[in-house]
Amino acid sequence: MKMKSLILTLAILVSVFSLVGAQELKSPNGALTMLFSIKNDGTPTYQLSYKNKAVIKSSNLGLELKDDKKSLVDDFTISNTETATFDETWQPVWGEVKAIRNHYNELAVTLTQNETDRVLIIRFRLFNDGLGFRYEFPSQKNLIYFVIKEEKTQFAMAGNHTAFWIPGDYDTQEYDYTESKLSEIRGLSEKAYTENVSQKSFSSTGVQTSLMMKTNDGLYINLHEAALINYSCMHLNLDDEHMIFESWLTPDANGDKGYIQAPSHSPWRTIMVSDDAKDILASKMTLNLNDPCKINDTSWIKPVKYIGVWWEMITGKSSWAYTNDIPSVQLGVTDFTKVKPNGTHAANTTHVKKYIDFAEKHGFDAVLVEGWNEGWEDWFGYSKDYVFDFVTPYPDFDVKGIHAYAKSKGIKMIMHHETSGSIRNYERHIDKAYQFMKDNGYDAVKSGYVGNILPRGENHYNQWIVNHYQYAIEKAADYKIMVNAHEAIRPTGICRTYPNLIGNESARGTEYQAFGGSKPNHVTVLPFTRLIGGPMDYTPGIFEMDISKFSPNNDSHVNSTIANQLALYVTMYSPLQMAADLPEHYEQFMDAFQFIKDVAIDWDESVYLEAEPGDYITVARKEKGSNNWFIGNVNGNETRASNITFGFLDKDKKYMATIYADAKEAHYKTNPQAYTITTKKVTSKSKLSQVSVAGGGYAISIIEVK
Amino acid sequence: MKMKSLILTLAILVSVFSLVGAQELKSPNGALTMLFSIKNDGTPTYQLSYKNKAVIKSSNLGLELKDDKKSLVDDFTISNTETATFDETWQPVWGEVKAIRNHYNELAVTLTQNETDRVLIIRFRLFNDGLGFRYEFPSQKNLIYFVIKEEKTQFAMAGNHTAFWIPGDYDTQEYDYTESKLSEIRGLSEKAYTENVSQKSFSSTGVQTSLMMKTNDGLYINLHEAALINYSCMHLNLDDEHMIFESWLTPDANGDKGYIQAPSHSPWRTIMVSDDAKDILASKMTLNLNDPCKINDTSWIKPVKYIGVWWEMITGKSSWAYTNDIPSVQLGVTDFTKVKPNGTHAANTTHVKKYIDFAEKHGFDAVLVEGWNEGWEDWFGYSKDYVFDFVTPYPDFDVKGIHAYAKSKGIKMIMHHETSGSIRNYERHIDKAYQFMKDNGYDAVKSGYVGNILPRGENHYNQWIVNHYQYAIEKAADYKIMVNAHEAIRPTGICRTYPNLIGNESARGTEYQAFGGSKPNHVTVLPFTRLIGGPMDYTPGIFEMDISKFSPNNDSHVNSTIANQLALYVTMYSPLQMAADLPEHYEQFMDAFQFIKDVAIDWDESVYLEAEPGDYITVARKEKGSNNWFIGNVNGNETRASNITFGFLDKDKKYMATIYADAKEAHYKTNPQAYTITTKKVTSKSKLSQVSVAGGGYAISIIEVK
Repeated sequence: MKMKSLILTLAILVSVFSLVGAQELKSPNGALTMLFSIKNDGTPTYQLSYKNKAVIKSSNLGLELKDDKKSLVDDFTISNTETATFDETWQPVWGEVKAIRNHYNELAVTLTQNETDRVLIIRFRLFNDGLGFRYEFPSQKNLIYFVIKEEKTQFAMAGNHTAFWIPGDYDTQEYDYTESKLSEIRGLSEKAYTENVSQKSFSSTGVQTSLMMKTNDGLYINLHEAALINYSCMHLNLDDEHMIFESWLTPDANGDKGYIQAPSHSPWRTIMVSDDAKDILASKMTLNLNDPCKINDTSWIKPVKYIGVWWEMITGKSSWAYTNDIPSVQLGVTDFTKVKPNGTHAANTTHVKKYIDFAEKHGFDAVLVEGWNEGWEDWFGYSKDYVFDFVTPYPDFDVKGIHAYAKSKGIKMIMHHETSGSIRNYERHIDKAYQFMKDNGYDAVKSGYVGNILPRGENHYNQWIVNHYQYAIEKAADYKIMVNAHEAIRPTGICRTYPNLIGNESARGTEYQAFGGSKPNHVTVLPFTRLIGGPMDYTPGIFEMDISKFSPNNDSHVNSTIANQLALYVTMYSPLQMAADLPEHYEQFMDAFQFIKDVAIDWDESVYLEAEPGDYITVARKEKGSNNWFIGNVNGNETRASNITFGFLDKDKKYMATIYADAKEAHYKTNPQAYTITTKKVTSKSKLSQVSVAGGGYAISIIEVK
Repeated sequence: MKMKSLILTLAILVSVFSLVGAQELKSPNGALTMLFSIKNDGTPTYQLSYKNKAVIKSSNLGLELKDDKKSLVDDFTISNTETATFDETWQPVWGEVKAIRNHYNELAVTLTQNETDRVLIIRFRLFNDGLGFRYEFPSQKNLIYFVIKEEKTQFAMAGNHTAFWIPGDYDTQEYDYTESKLSEIRGLSEKAYTENVSQKSFSSTGVQTSLMMKTNDGLYINLHEAALINYSCMHLNLDDEHMIFESWLTPDANGDKGYIQAPSHSPWRTIMVSDDAKDILASKMTLNLNDPCKINDTSWIKPVKYIGVWWEMITGKSSWAYTNDIPSVQLGVTDFTKVKPNGTHAANTTHVKKYIDFAEKHGFDAVLVEGWNEGWEDWFGYSKDYVFDFVTPYPDFDVKGIHAYAKSKGIKMIMHHETSGSIRNYERHIDKAYQFMKDNGYDAVKSGYVGNILPRGENHYNQWIVNHYQYAIEKAADYKIMVNAHEAIRPTGICRTYPNLIGNESARGTEYQAFGGSKPNHVTVLPFTRLIGGPMDYTPGIFEMDISKFSPNNDSHVNSTIANQLALYVTMYSPLQMAADLPEHYEQFMDAFQFIKDVAIDWDESVYLEAEPGDYITVARKEKGSNNWFIGNVNGNETRASNITFGFLDKDKKYMATIYADAKEAHYKTNPQAYTITTKKVTSKSKLSQVSVAGGGYAISIIEVK
């Protein structure tokens, strides 16, 4: 046989085989169909459709390996397939609902690479609300240790969708969202890439997950990942000629993107899809793709409503630092009892006790104090290795005295561990720091990773550092400590497995309202993007929008109405909720503040009533173990009437609703403090039409009348 | 005034000023003269002469800064000078001598940079045996945090000297020394750069310190550094046109060479010089430039003579790994009780007890066991993060049983912590690992850093990792643990400050005799180079030179005679001395082994009798707290008669000497086991002419006869 004929024959054989190799998977309700197949050259592919509409067009799967003669991208044949159906309902330790159904059909395709005899399993789980899939590297002779040069997972879009995106970055997610067509990302990327204290972009069409999209024919698509453990964080890079996103993992100092030891697997790549935006918000797919809880005794994990010595520093009214008189601090050498206090140090005992008093008076669980420990004089921007020791207070912060005082008032203190990105230093001190917390009555820690990571060359999101955040969470669990990590890796549902991870920042939080302001519709996007992976410590509750009123050198404006701020306690689901503003500002608006006092932070049910990314979100939630409901509506850039019905209420019960709404003349910029409070009786048959202004919203407490 | 005249006038002024600025410093005995001066452009320079011979010609001083408009290299004027004389005698916890005189004249030059108003102090200490100087960065407004792009310290040689060098490398010092002219380094560098498991060269004229040189007019010059703390290790790069060495610091993943927070200072740069090679060996300058002991209670720090379950694995006779049946280990998952043992695992209880028996029988202090803990199946070469946990033994290694057995025999166990370069993993486990040691009777640890450093991009010798080694030493001191760190940063006299650092490898040790063999004169170079910074765990005492006799697949030959091996216990000063060979080999030569049993490991006096780098070293040492002396002679590549007198002995005492010497027909390659043992009475008036063959030597024990 001539060579040409042989090649032709082989091609036909392969082609036939690839047809044989096509595998279809349907979601339990049949709405979603995933088709897996192998191309002629042995490249694995998948496609996804929703009610016969293409969601993901044929997209390649695979991984490019470093220093390996053959990557895991082609030359595969299917050596086995297994299907399964899973249906289980589980109870989260805390959450939006008291029980979560985990229901999917599964297809595991075992692929054998012809030349190398290596085996790769791609496992698909198709839920009613989307697809998850991951790469699995089973134990085998020819693939034990390998280095990922790049993951080559494609997400081929079916059109030039509208996307809500932030630019790809190895170090920060603290960007405003841009709403644009996919084709416009490249042109807008420079504008979207606003300045941050630690940032590194990689491509003008690179974006971060979770990425929310909307198609011209009414589909809502969300791309993210679940269970990011011992792997680099995935970005998406867009081929904007073909509208194909491809995975772009975060590299280490050498440019390598992952070190794998089989048996192992990648995180899940997730594609949520629905023709109703509310389904995206209600989806529990990300949690379901994570492992069940690994903490045996979770009795110590409790949702927390808190205030903190924080906003006054963020706004510039007071300082984290104790003195302005020394150029730099050397811990253990610098004697703070010998320096001149700057008079603006907020974390002093007297001041903290006032916060404790306020917390007690208004029913908060806890008080956060930042700037309590030595080192804030030069904590940032110097690549300082030994920047904090996490156990040494400034002379004016009486740890024991504050502990005793808080305890006497029934208030918990929340610890603050700013690492300044000095990862090794934190790990060196972490045991003593956690023990110090337990010794002094702190059950929860807010950790921070501001600035560039040490060692230099590493960044916030690669495998090495991802493993640090996980280490801190698991070690905290050993000490029965709850973690709220800021500037850490974005959450991917790990709070199911480690519910002591009660919060993360990983997005542009309220602090940016003091750094120039966020877009008024920012909070109508976050639940579709950042919150897909887990709760955010967004720190809502700002009542004084004109910061210059109390911090003269700061002319930033909070782009939100008071009613919008109240609604955030319901729309931004989190078991950790702060009332972020200063006590004196709340004291000016005690009627509105009442909602923050009343609102629950743990729920039995959540019902999304209205949702459109960038425009509005309305959700009703039933307080855990009670018949009370709370509703939140946040509104985007245009005034809008929200129309809701109360069918979620118990038909046999009566309720009194208190509605905190924008006054007619309210506006996020010109008149943010104009609100109305009305009360009315409601039943399951009630309806409400309520106008929310630009950057506004409303909040409703619905208390059962017995 | 015309511009040209102005420039001329300025030049004259500067020139006059630079003459004014010249500062001379003399050594206490007047033999050494250091001249500091400022060039016309404000560049600081120094030069050094010894008995009117140029040692260092005018050489620039300074540091190039990163991202800074102005480096610390020029534009300086002298704003202050201070001189001082220091003369103190101190007692080391262990050492070659019981008391060390620290005697120097000091000049501290304060330089102010005109444009920046920054202050830099250069401190010179001139001893009778050499010069040390360092850069000091005092606390000041305009220089607090900075990044070193490169240190620009020059060492301008006065000629094309002969050097004993190993190639510059960021990851290893385990090279054979090359003896060549400075001008020949470039041509020989490729040949000198032999393969290693982790290595990174940077220049074909880059060499490591300590660098030993010999001039045509009979001077011996040694360049090294002292007190390398929180700074990158210094290499030397040769401008071989002008014979100027310049400092070349070890970079981090970003290529940066040091992060400084003032007040701070560099390590000392040292230049030892003498017209007698013996003075280089006897010099205590490196120790003297380190801080006094920082450990208050040093009673637990004791010299150790030990054997170990080690050489049998090094030679391939047995294995560190427990099984050959699994492709990779996942600690905590892999169940070693379920795998098939490979039958070659040396660290098993029965075998270890035989070593304990041998140690007890022959008076050793301790037994090292490597390969005792889970993880050796895939410990190396895979960039494996969680490679060891340092507390989990293989099923056949009974930690408690061995502890009890050793204790009953009066033998200490030496722990082994191989980190495989996975620094973070070691630090995460270090507290538990050290506590595990204390709980199980281990007072000393041999730590290892084989392979590339994790995180990737870091290397063995940059500031970040240097700080890890120091962290491990200081933490070990907290646990009262002695450290013998292999593959770590080369020592720079830190054992004065932390005498629990009882050993390092940091050079080509005896293991290379099983990896192809070392040069027969290797041990006549090491004391002039590697040992300048501190003791080496060289692991001498090999009696069976033909490794294939007991490890059939290894045809390496130990390039040394038995008499040479015995001499090493004296010539290679260390408070930690191993008898590295297998017990069964010692049992074949019990008469020679007697020297190893007898030789002391701590000393009251040391007298260098003969020395020539690369050719021979003969030294006599007086045992601590006794009147016994031990002499060692190691010989280079040619047969040579050593002629010594015994004037160091007490005039009023009589002694019996036992001389372990090469037999006439001995040769390191063809007849290494041919030795003679003779005894004779000696007094302070005795003389000895003793022939040592190539790669040979002799050892003498001199016992007082009462």
